[in-house]
Amino acid sequence: MSKTVDFYFDFGSPTAYLAHKRLQQLGEQYGLQVRYMPMLLGGVFKATGNNSPVAIPAKGAYMLQHDLPRFAKRYGVPLNFNPHFPINTLNLMRGAIAAGRLGCMADYVNLAFDAVWVQEKNMGDPAIVSETLSEAGLDAEGIIALSQDPEVKAELLADTEAAVARGVFGAPTLFLDGAMYFGQDRLDFIEEALTD
Amino acid sequence: MSKTVDFYFDFGSPTAYLAHKRLQQLGEQYGLQVRYMPMLLGGVFKATGNNSPVAIPAKGAYMLQHDLPRFAKRYGVPLNFNPHFPINTLNLMRGAIAAGRLGCMADYVNLAFDAVWVQEKNMGDPAIVSETLSEAGLDAEGIIALSQDPEVKAELLADTEAAVARGVFGAPTLFLDGAMYFGQDRLDFIEEALTD
Repeated sequence: MSKTVDFYFDFGSPTAYLAHKRLQQLGEQYGLQVRYMPMLLGGVFKATGNNSPVAIPAKGAYMLQHDLPRFAKRYGVPLNFNPHFPINTLNLMRGAIAAGRLGCMADYVNLAFDAVWVQEKNMGDPAIVSETLSEAGLDAEGIIALSQDPEVKAELLADTEAAVARGVFGAPTLFLDGAMYFGQDRLDFIEEALTD
Repeated sequence: MSKTVDFYFDFGSPTAYLAHKRLQQLGEQYGLQVRYMPMLLGGVFKATGNNSPVAIPAKGAYMLQHDLPRFAKRYGVPLNFNPHFPINTLNLMRGAIAAGRLGCMADYVNLAFDAVWVQEKNMGDPAIVSETLSEAGLDAEGIIALSQDPEVKAELLADTEAAVARGVFGAPTLFLDGAMYFGQDRLDFIEEALTD
């Protein structure tokens, strides 16, 4: 019986990217299904009084130079810290809601995470987003148009508020069997829960 | 050939307590030696612009209810969140410097961590500290007297500044083979480095 994990993410977070890659591996290994839960990390931070770890210079330096590369190596996945960081992901996250409505959430999520954290693209730039989606064979025009729909915009805000109401204070956050896990570095607990 | 890890800690941190317990296990299993590096976590936070994770209410709730108990269970160690938290550990940390000078650092560290995070004592209270040290057969009078020596006080401040200069921004922080690791949840990387 395959389980489903709720994965709260924002493409602007390198740890959310690492979680995404690791969840794909757990999907292959254990049949874990992922329910993608887009949210605006900036909105979560504002609502909870939290902030990005890289806002602390010494912590940011440690993460970029040591911690993130260690986990990328452990998982065996590429990670190139995006030179445009921090990227304004508002429209990119709206695009995730739109992609969900158009039935291509998983492809969109995979594409956007790789564009930011492997290909180092400035995905805050609408032209680059459009080009990236088109090149991958996704319906760039349809996704981008729908991402500007007032209902889609409102849904992203409502989803962000719902995440906070559920206890989310950062990204990535995961829920499995009703239990909350914060951070890509807690996916070993997810794996344990899958193999129990 | 046994290795030595530099362990930066403050007794006020529950994650430093978990690291301490896990380091003892790694000592038994791999002969890992621990060099105790007392520091004032409040001073580190002030110098780096960092803050306690529990300062974010949603994060604090998650840590206390889920994250800390999960790791205590994984390590198989007791953890009782101290009802007097946050404890002012200034004199307790000065005591660690004093204990180091008197040749009983390891016993003192073990005792103080257990008093705070197992026995739930208010170790910010000098009378309770004195009683706890005495009951364990340590030289309470000698340690407490030396902890108020101006040189000892200055050493703790200098050690805290030196920690920050080395890149420390929180507790626990560990250095092994010149590499920095932040958090009790990175001790699996320490273990990997020991078994390489």
